[in-house]
Amino acid sequence: MRAREASRTIARADTETKNEVLRRMAMLLEERGEEIVKANAQDVEGAGRRGLRPALVERLVFDKRKIQARIRALMKIAALADPVGQIYGADRRPNGLMVGRMRVPLGVILMIYEARPHVTVNGGALALKAGNALILKGGSEAKLCNALLGRFWMDALETCGLPTDAVQVVSFGHDAVFELLKQDDLIDVVIPRGGKELIKDVRERSRIPLIKHFEGVCHVYVAHGADKKKALDIILDSKLLMPAVCNAAETVLVDEALCEWLPDLVSALRQNKVEVRGCPVVCRHASDVKPASEDDWSTEYLDRIYSIKAVSDADEAIEHITRYGSGHTDVIVTEDYSLANRFIQEVDSSVVLVNASTMFCDGESLGMGAEVGISTDKLHARGPVGLEGLTSYKFVVFGDGQIMGQT
Amino acid sequence: MRAREASRTIARADTETKNEVLRRMAMLLEERGEEIVKANAQDVEGAGRRGLRPALVERLVFDKRKIQARIRALMKIAALADPVGQIYGADRRPNGLMVGRMRVPLGVILMIYEARPHVTVNGGALALKAGNALILKGGSEAKLCNALLGRFWMDALETCGLPTDAVQVVSFGHDAVFELLKQDDLIDVVIPRGGKELIKDVRERSRIPLIKHFEGVCHVYVAHGADKKKALDIILDSKLLMPAVCNAAETVLVDEALCEWLPDLVSALRQNKVEVRGCPVVCRHASDVKPASEDDWSTEYLDRIYSIKAVSDADEAIEHITRYGSGHTDVIVTEDYSLANRFIQEVDSSVVLVNASTMFCDGESLGMGAEVGISTDKLHARGPVGLEGLTSYKFVVFGDGQIMGQT
Repeated sequence: MRAREASRTIARADTETKNEVLRRMAMLLEERGEEIVKANAQDVEGAGRRGLRPALVERLVFDKRKIQARIRALMKIAALADPVGQIYGADRRPNGLMVGRMRVPLGVILMIYEARPHVTVNGGALALKAGNALILKGGSEAKLCNALLGRFWMDALETCGLPTDAVQVVSFGHDAVFELLKQDDLIDVVIPRGGKELIKDVRERSRIPLIKHFEGVCHVYVAHGADKKKALDIILDSKLLMPAVCNAAETVLVDEALCEWLPDLVSALRQNKVEVRGCPVVCRHASDVKPASEDDWSTEYLDRIYSIKAVSDADEAIEHITRYGSGHTDVIVTEDYSLANRFIQEVDSSVVLVNASTMFCDGESLGMGAEVGISTDKLHARGPVGLEGLTSYKFVVFGDGQIMGQT
Repeated sequence: MRAREASRTIARADTETKNEVLRRMAMLLEERGEEIVKANAQDVEGAGRRGLRPALVERLVFDKRKIQARIRALMKIAALADPVGQIYGADRRPNGLMVGRMRVPLGVILMIYEARPHVTVNGGALALKAGNALILKGGSEAKLCNALLGRFWMDALETCGLPTDAVQVVSFGHDAVFELLKQDDLIDVVIPRGGKELIKDVRERSRIPLIKHFEGVCHVYVAHGADKKKALDIILDSKLLMPAVCNAAETVLVDEALCEWLPDLVSALRQNKVEVRGCPVVCRHASDVKPASEDDWSTEYLDRIYSIKAVSDADEAIEHITRYGSGHTDVIVTEDYSLANRFIQEVDSSVVLVNASTMFCDGESLGMGAEVGISTDKLHARGPVGLEGLTSYKFVVFGDGQIMGQT
């Protein structure tokens, strides 16, 4: 397959050439932004006609402001250190062998996503920088805009003397995608991004390893010894900044010892137009709170809704998170040192925070520069996946004639 | 499932308790070695009756010497650093957040293997040390010995107050195994060890990620500028030490400039009872060499046979390795600095060596203390898989009330 061929060239491309492709792509976005806006407007119009959900239409929009954000992202990814060829874990063995691990590209990545054309830019940039070839299968609702961005990638690659097959925007139908998901000799990893159903579908049918998360049922646990001001800031930030992203919090757990504080919390949330659904204890302490159903505890609202539950202690909080959470991002708010420590140890989520907003589950905030998605899997990459997550490694061994046995 | 339950306890077990289990297991092997030898003898007898291949019978044997080796391995794994809870990549972000990655166990591991009862000891020790629960499905030919070792594990776990479900030796049939391979909510990773067919079978049917390799078609490339003494030592060691292991070399590539040396090489191999199959150039230079067929270049002999090919230059050698190799372990012998460098960069195998035997593709030689197998996959773990390969990580973030936006 052409992507496999191209991946061999990209794997060996030098850093400066790869960066030049990203800068050239940024230039194309700058110079030909109006074409993109126009193609996107047609996509949006078509989506409107077909009655796409407003939340999805919102994601589909790729306007001047979003294009500028992508240009900045491209320049930033170009400025990141090249992971390919980095050597780490180097050591000299007693027999004199020098051993290290060298980061190498994964090979060919298939990205399957809905709506968001910005993934077409961002995914391409990160995959290329990490030395991989990439096949981008965006949603049909973003067809025109993605096709145009695909041509820009071809142009940028060609200008820099790299194979244009290294970033391929494809638009074929479901059956062809399902066929692709069986080609484990041609594709090394699949990154599906989108709703739970899309990801379940891909998992069912893929014989290729995935980097994925299904959903983000994230918690803020306000524990014994919490600073209430910090707690409120964190609860509000974890919901309001971007209610529809996977790392927005869905549930607040509050120690029963802090029940007196519940009316303040509920009223602050209401002032910020957040609907509250509470357990019986919460309903008793704050007025007019809708009772939460069993389903609420495992629901990713992706909306201005919080479920709130009173817990008797940290045991119950951690148990609740283990049972209902999705292993994505969970926070404890407390000034109690031992409790913070225990939460960090015992909560097995991809990102566990003390006294900080769930919004920091993000490649840039955690120091990776940029991310291609979040993983809640335990194999290979967990949490935000940056350049390093798009690489593998090989052992490199420098000897001087060493053999193991007597010959 | 019971293994999932047990994995939660093992994940939190302290280092000393885990080490105590390993030492207790070593003690049981020491004290009750004769029972093991007896059970194994019955297995071997049964295998003989059923006409198992001699190579497999050889692997099945678990005698006093092999038991002693396992006792030493257990003590050594007990002495290794505990990977669980290690923090790495720690950094302080500009907003004051302290961010790090904490190693955590993978969860539940399923190991599927043929014959070799030593895997029942070794796999259990490494999985436990890395905080995982383990299900061991050995071959039916090793049933009695494995069952006994399974009882020892239970005994050792119970004595140390850990759940006996943490290491389970199961002996059910193929259908039940295939059923297990669908339980991706109960098992986190599958490690198949054995013949190519076994591994293909597991891959076909598994919905759970695998850590695996199919085969080892490993090369020694004797390049321009090679020290012939080192080359010969490495070629002999890479085959003779253990001809039946995956990292034994199968093919020697020799630069055409070194053709005069071919008769010496062939005669040295013959003296060591190694059969040689050569390309036309090799057959022309050395007498009585059997011509290699196209199939020879991709065959893992696992036997005292070498295929030898003359190549015109490094390009041809690297191309040959890329085309016919299995991405396992490949060696260049040369004193030419730039050539060594190029080989290291361009050969994309799990272990790439300069002037050293393929035998060093081994967890202990490469500094991991011990290994649970070799991976030629690019996701998660590549090359020898040690304790670290049996862990995942989570991001841990220590804040002081940080939020991302204005609330």
